[in-house]
Amino acid sequence: MKLLDLGERALLNRIREVLGNKGFSLVDDSAYILFDDRYLLVTTDMVRKKTHFPEVMTPWEMGWFAAAVNLSDIAAMGGEPLGLLLSLGLPKSMDENQVLEIIRGARECVERYDVSIIGGDTKEHDEVTIGGVAVGVVPKEEILLRIGMKPGDVVAVTGSLGKAGAGFLALKHGLDGVSFDGLVKPIPRLVEGRGLAENRLVSTCMDLSDGFVNSLYQLAEINKVGFLIERDKIPVARDAFVVAEKLGLDPFSVSMDYGGDYELLVTLSEENVGEACDVVGETKLTVVGRVTEGGLNVSFGGRVKKLVNSGFEHFKSSR
Amino acid sequence: MKLLDLGERALLNRIREVLGNKGFSLVDDSAYILFDDRYLLVTTDMVRKKTHFPEVMTPWEMGWFAAAVNLSDIAAMGGEPLGLLLSLGLPKSMDENQVLEIIRGARECVERYDVSIIGGDTKEHDEVTIGGVAVGVVPKEEILLRIGMKPGDVVAVTGSLGKAGAGFLALKHGLDGVSFDGLVKPIPRLVEGRGLAENRLVSTCMDLSDGFVNSLYQLAEINKVGFLIERDKIPVARDAFVVAEKLGLDPFSVSMDYGGDYELLVTLSEENVGEACDVVGETKLTVVGRVTEGGLNVSFGGRVKKLVNSGFEHFKSSR
Repeated sequence: MKLLDLGERALLNRIREVLGNKGFSLVDDSAYILFDDRYLLVTTDMVRKKTHFPEVMTPWEMGWFAAAVNLSDIAAMGGEPLGLLLSLGLPKSMDENQVLEIIRGARECVERYDVSIIGGDTKEHDEVTIGGVAVGVVPKEEILLRIGMKPGDVVAVTGSLGKAGAGFLALKHGLDGVSFDGLVKPIPRLVEGRGLAENRLVSTCMDLSDGFVNSLYQLAEINKVGFLIERDKIPVARDAFVVAEKLGLDPFSVSMDYGGDYELLVTLSEENVGEACDVVGETKLTVVGRVTEGGLNVSFGGRVKKLVNSGFEHFKSSR
Repeated sequence: MKLLDLGERALLNRIREVLGNKGFSLVDDSAYILFDDRYLLVTTDMVRKKTHFPEVMTPWEMGWFAAAVNLSDIAAMGGEPLGLLLSLGLPKSMDENQVLEIIRGARECVERYDVSIIGGDTKEHDEVTIGGVAVGVVPKEEILLRIGMKPGDVVAVTGSLGKAGAGFLALKHGLDGVSFDGLVKPIPRLVEGRGLAENRLVSTCMDLSDGFVNSLYQLAEINKVGFLIERDKIPVARDAFVVAEKLGLDPFSVSMDYGGDYELLVTLSEENVGEACDVVGETKLTVVGRVTEGGLNVSFGGRVKKLVNSGFEHFKSSR
């Protein structure tokens, strides 16, 4: 079967089968290796011009983006970053200054978290393709995984949702007055993830790179649970409201259905909510629903409806 | 300046400047991070269909190759591998079985060294592009670096040279009866690298992915030394003789000027040669020359000539 018919999720399941029990910690944001009393975290994400770098994106932003999406995977595991490697596939016709701008953007992102670019390589490629590798570490007892929630836990997200969706739609429809920062300059939630891990406040954690609803579908499957989301509690980003109004769309859909927000989605017991909010601080942690025994539902205006997964999936064309 | 005028070496130097002292351990095969009394090793290499996977190469071999070239970087540091991650960029039109064959090839390579594929991701790409990441570990005192040789040390290589060059030329000229294994199925010298490191037998080590002469040029620059190579001691691979004869080429050129042999190039003091040969065992370690105060020269038939670097460099077209 061709990948466009199969889709990314099914492909990853087949790969997991081929690897047997041994391999591919595909369900989590980073791979982890036990190293004495700590887990070493390693993650890699490939980004490329055609699918990840819209025309408006500068080389500096490409570098930032490649660094940020990899650091976000360390954040989602509760880890402290140790360094970043960049594997650059570059067209021969590219100007060296553009390459150096990619490096500068990545450097500025990692230095914000007191780490360095520690290695990498450069190769020729027809299309700018950046393979980022982030390395991190987390004490054994503090690692955050995607499995471990139970019915009754509350669901919460950091920051606001829909910044990337708003940027994507603004670009697609040529809207003015909307910042693309949420799309092209994501902020990895390293401090927040580390704080939640260190204080053992959450039962699971993942980043929202795949979008809110899509992520809930993934979590429901691997945890064998359901979710009831309270739509009106979703912290919709300001730009999502603006773009939704201009395009006549539902701002909640812009916030919940699009990938690219590198916020953290966590589950935790209700009694930890106060302390977790304190730890997350200014970034804000918002409770948006609850883990249930089964079914993925959203409540609003006194009604309960099924939560529809219209999120993007690689290889398949979904919108 | 465009990359095709600048070339990979100059680009890497510029990147190093941008990163200052902090970054990019570009001179070594892997990045290394101190972790208590050990170094954690992390390396990433991107390979792609157009430049790394000749038509004859099966998806299984692509997977093996992506794993092997990354493990080779761990070998060159004297490390023990801990795991491999694969970041796969795949065309939508690709068949799932081809993807699974890539995974199977990579798995067979890493399992040979008792490690697993521990993570990765899949993304859409117009061209099959595999970003491999190998993770390893080496006791602090045993790490092998490229810097540290001194005049008087001897130069030695593992295995035989020219297997990849022979495969490359056989493909290019459509020759029959030459195995492509040296080109498409390299063997990372993990056991040999680890043995040399553990017994503290060598002063420097690197892998020969860039070719023998090219590697000597890199080593001369960073160590501020020269080399005198005895041409007739080069362990020329059988296929290099065969291909050279068919094409009327110099077999030593096929062995010394082409990249893609994942053998180890080491320097060591003369007194360690016997023990180093024992450690490398059946793979064979061959002394091929000596570190000098300056100049890159090759001796043969009683004459001494300058060693010319005609090796491939990314971005630049050299042959």
